[in-house]
Amino acid sequence: MNVSDDRFKGKIGIIGAGALGGYYGAQLAESGCDVHFLMRSDYDVVRERGLIVHSIQGDFTLQPKIYRSASELGSCDLVIIGLKATDNHALPALLAATTTPQTIILTLQNGLGNEEFIAQAIREIHGISSEQALGNVIGGTAFLCSNRIGPGEISHTDHGWIRIAEAAGTARPRTHQLAMTFEQAKVHCEVNNSLALTRWAKLVWNIPFNGLGAAALQANTADVMGDEHLLATARGLMEEVLAAAEADGVTLDPALVHRNIENTRTMGPYKSSMQIDAELGNPMEVEAIIGEALRRGLAGGAALPRMQMLYAILSRMNQGR
Amino acid sequence: MNVSDDRFKGKIGIIGAGALGGYYGAQLAESGCDVHFLMRSDYDVVRERGLIVHSIQGDFTLQPKIYRSASELGSCDLVIIGLKATDNHALPALLAATTTPQTIILTLQNGLGNEEFIAQAIREIHGISSEQALGNVIGGTAFLCSNRIGPGEISHTDHGWIRIAEAAGTARPRTHQLAMTFEQAKVHCEVNNSLALTRWAKLVWNIPFNGLGAAALQANTADVMGDEHLLATARGLMEEVLAAAEADGVTLDPALVHRNIENTRTMGPYKSSMQIDAELGNPMEVEAIIGEALRRGLAGGAALPRMQMLYAILSRMNQGR
Repeated sequence: MNVSDDRFKGKIGIIGAGALGGYYGAQLAESGCDVHFLMRSDYDVVRERGLIVHSIQGDFTLQPKIYRSASELGSCDLVIIGLKATDNHALPALLAATTTPQTIILTLQNGLGNEEFIAQAIREIHGISSEQALGNVIGGTAFLCSNRIGPGEISHTDHGWIRIAEAAGTARPRTHQLAMTFEQAKVHCEVNNSLALTRWAKLVWNIPFNGLGAAALQANTADVMGDEHLLATARGLMEEVLAAAEADGVTLDPALVHRNIENTRTMGPYKSSMQIDAELGNPMEVEAIIGEALRRGLAGGAALPRMQMLYAILSRMNQGR
Repeated sequence: MNVSDDRFKGKIGIIGAGALGGYYGAQLAESGCDVHFLMRSDYDVVRERGLIVHSIQGDFTLQPKIYRSASELGSCDLVIIGLKATDNHALPALLAATTTPQTIILTLQNGLGNEEFIAQAIREIHGISSEQALGNVIGGTAFLCSNRIGPGEISHTDHGWIRIAEAAGTARPRTHQLAMTFEQAKVHCEVNNSLALTRWAKLVWNIPFNGLGAAALQANTADVMGDEHLLATARGLMEEVLAAAEADGVTLDPALVHRNIENTRTMGPYKSSMQIDAELGNPMEVEAIIGEALRRGLAGGAALPRMQMLYAILSRMNQGR
């Protein structure tokens, strides 16, 4: 069987072509998919010398199809969103120009609430039902270490796999087709039947290491692992994420705590995205990564002392950014 | 009965003549006590124009007895310590020059561990027993809103009372004599029979409002009271301080939580000392105010998730200061 024949053959639009969206879009394009990038500040540089990917899987330079505006990019069959969740306010206008009522939208953004936000936007844009809107959305979590090291230049230093799940219901043929398309683009892709499980499982790592990394002033993963009290706090936060997920109706494997701690021990010093944002004074994804999880957990009656304190501190740090 | 005859009549030395030590020393001197101030950077200004106290109880200017060094100050009958706990490393040398084996030492510093540190220092200086050394120490907590607004210039804006207790055993005649001496200097002074109770009770307020004020980036008391999650965290921290105290053998009144919250509600925006230090980039009294309390509580088996996280964050903020 020639699996490549079954790949996604439609027009793919990339919204948010940074370290994440730029990397996955470039991998898909390099593998032969029809990928179109929305670019703003990097447009001229990429037009001139291409999109450069330094990757542990091999460096390459792409001459991609790029557009300065969403209306030039136009309607796509699949839109992949790599925008920071703090920029979600820009999404409705971008989706209005790039989707039809049939467009599939894959969001690889961090945290909770993005799929619902996107579904709400396309429901209003296309006048479709809530069910239909959510049915167009696929969520994914990316396990990727990459940085945008300059205009049109991405450095991929570790990992890179993703896990995707339908926002409504369980996996469909199209979910697996998308996974296969990623696999052919050298991106390992798992398919999960529960988006909630996928999202919450990712937060087990994200909340302690993004949150503490920012709140404890420039603490990378090795700093957290090396400090008795930060490590105990990280472990406690992980247990709280399990409790919050449970309160939200999602039962996570308790072994995730131990596994995440041990995996992080072998990672060496790594700066989470929120730590980097904290250092640069950029808006941090506080609501997506911790605020929504806290609200759902508290609403379900969970006791979340560490998450609540971390959220309170990060919210204040985020003010005025 | 002429109570003033029973006042403390010996030589009083003030070490750490800032917003706190300077204020109490000035009040004692103004009331007629024999007070001698160790001054460093403020020496020339105070020599020239005196020590100026702007106070809600009435402004005054004092021409105090001041000294540039502890050896010029010499032996005292009573030494009052207003030094920041982060400067405790300087205390052994200062106490060597200003105490005899009979000198009483009153520390009005923040937090836990200062009395033990001072007793250990004078034990080594004078070759006396641990019991005798601790017997020379009185601890006090100050409820004072004052600021050093310039060289030799203090602004006292609210409160001002103190609560004192012997470091070893219960109150003695000298404890009450000292309290009476303060009362005559317009400083309301309570005497408590348990220093541990006095110290821990103060931490019920200090840990949340100093700690969160610094960790949540410039949050004053009104900011904490006005943020749902910071307030819940402050309340949770207060309950943890009660649990830590209990684990350290000190039973605090549970009503302290409600009372501290309500008192703070009426305070308006107030910057804790640790918040001010955080803003100025100065060393914060992290070990005295939270580190020692956390260690004692954990050693006694208390569950202190918020205190541990707060300590971990503050410790990192304090690095390199």
